[in-house]
Amino acid sequence: MAVFAALASPTLADPLPSWNDGATKTAIIDFVENVTDPASDKFLPEEDRIATFDNDGTLWAEQPLYFQGLFALDVLKKKAAADPSILSSDVLKAASSGDLKGVMAGGTAGLLELLNVSHSGMTVDQFQSDAHEWLTTTTHPTSGMHYVDMTYQPMLELLSYLRDEGFSTYIVSGGGIDFIRAISDKAYGIPPQQVVGTEGTTKYEEVDGKMVLMKHGGLTFYDDKEGKPVGIARHIGKRPIFVGGNSDGDFAMLEYATSGDGPAFGLIVHHTDADREFAYDREGHIGVLDRGLDEAAARGWHLVDMKNDWARIWSVNK
Amino acid sequence: MAVFAALASPTLADPLPSWNDGATKTAIIDFVENVTDPASDKFLPEEDRIATFDNDGTLWAEQPLYFQGLFALDVLKKKAAADPSILSSDVLKAASSGDLKGVMAGGTAGLLELLNVSHSGMTVDQFQSDAHEWLTTTTHPTSGMHYVDMTYQPMLELLSYLRDEGFSTYIVSGGGIDFIRAISDKAYGIPPQQVVGTEGTTKYEEVDGKMVLMKHGGLTFYDDKEGKPVGIARHIGKRPIFVGGNSDGDFAMLEYATSGDGPAFGLIVHHTDADREFAYDREGHIGVLDRGLDEAAARGWHLVDMKNDWARIWSVNK
Ligand SMILES: [Ca+2]
Ligand SMILES: [Ca+2]
Repeated sequence: MAVFAALASPTLADPLPSWNDGATKTAIIDFVENVTDPASDKFLPEEDRIATFDNDGTLWAEQPLYFQGLFALDVLKKKAAADPSILSSDVLKAASSGDLKGVMAGGTAGLLELLNVSHSGMTVDQFQSDAHEWLTTTTHPTSGMHYVDMTYQPMLELLSYLRDEGFSTYIVSGGGIDFIRAISDKAYGIPPQQVVGTEGTTKYEEVDGKMVLMKHGGLTFYDDKEGKPVGIARHIGKRPIFVGGNSDGDFAMLEYATSGDGPAFGLIVHHTDADREFAYDREGHIGVLDRGLDEAAARGWHLVDMKNDWARIWSVNK
Repeated sequence: MAVFAALASPTLADPLPSWNDGATKTAIIDFVENVTDPASDKFLPEEDRIATFDNDGTLWAEQPLYFQGLFALDVLKKKAAADPSILSSDVLKAASSGDLKGVMAGGTAGLLELLNVSHSGMTVDQFQSDAHEWLTTTTHPTSGMHYVDMTYQPMLELLSYLRDEGFSTYIVSGGGIDFIRAISDKAYGIPPQQVVGTEGTTKYEEVDGKMVLMKHGGLTFYDDKEGKPVGIARHIGKRPIFVGGNSDGDFAMLEYATSGDGPAFGLIVHHTDADREFAYDREGHIGVLDRGLDEAAARGWHLVDMKNDWARIWSVNK
């Protein structure tokens, strides 16, 4: 068995070529080698190698607004062109005119209102088809890239590395579960059943003589902050041993994973690269990382310094 | 490749030895061979081979009451012995005195009240540990078997057969997700992330200085009837192609699976064997199969006649 194991994992190849050598990369590889080595006292069988990752700001970019928010704006504009009466609030009016500041002034409640109006009244299948097309053909306002290409190459390598080492990789996101599933397989190699996210009201009902799954307004589950451990409990039913996030919305998930009895790895992507991506942390309208920065060291969580730890940012070279 | 495939699936061995030869067994094997044969126009890749099964009455017995209901009765009795004031309704009083008829007179609402009181106020881990112990050590009132042994051998063979042929097997049950997960791996080889069920309020919170997942009263998702396709959408995100159920609570799931564009197999376990198990269908307090019996033939669903189709019932010989 040892011979086959050695053949199967060529230790000479670098599993994380877009990560610069340094403490973070070393810690990741050390952890993975420990929990996958049957001779290690940290060894865990494959069924316990659960890895969960936040999506926005962790696996792909999230500025100037969550991609799902930008998608919602585009959908709303189209809907309002056909029926202006749907613009029944200041946030919706701001959204339809592309006024991002006006939308963000409405805070989370405003974003949810925007999502309610733009993400309901269609089947799950139709919604995902629309989202997939938008993500693969529309260009981002500042980078000019397609959204699907704004995933982080070092994180794609990390996902692949973990899967090669027997981990199951999950997304656990505050974003909408149907939206992420529209692209997760193509973007990350993560199938729909391994995506946990915020859930809207979905009903099985007859429409035009066919039984379909329809999206309605309103949330049934908000998968952020303390909701993330709950989402993990509901969908996975096991405590993850490897968790990646980027904001205080991931604090509870990191805490949950790293407060079990066994080995666990917590990773926080710190946005430090204004030239190649964006630089932000303690303040802002999105991806606030404050308590996480304060407590990471004491909790043994690993901060990824994007500027210095990542040799390359994007999965597609611009 | 063909050579290896032939070696890997020894066609001479019967994959369903506890099924008597007949139309149902033939239909199952024909379907599986078709969707797994790359030369067939019904071929589907492994990622599309999703199989979902109801639990109570489909994979294990459900009489004289759902096992989870019997567990709840035992828990309630213990709780009431310590604090009689929790018996605040007729249903709860009936339950604590073992009066099944009194509990069932309360209908679904009564059962939910019983579950609320007996399934809250502990961590998910503690609850699952209690449930696992109960299922593996307590004996069933009429069979005298341990509950964990009252699974159906032919269905265990079907689950294994499907997995051997590249299917992912899921439970999609009206029963509680935490309860089923306590035993699903041991009983069926189904890991927690492949169990979909009714969900109670769960919160991530601090108890005695530790962050835990606590079970509270109240349901957040009822995974029965039209809820089953919704539960499938939330947890799996794909339409199943093989579905097994036993009651009209599975009608929507069967309908959803078999109304897609591709091949799909619907199976209904019909309880026809009063000698070896139980006989019931159109009437009763549990597992009512009425519309399903009427429409199975027209919809192409396969009725399993337990008495004639199954050579053996239980996974453990009495
Ligand atoms: Ca994030
Ligand atoms: Ca049932």
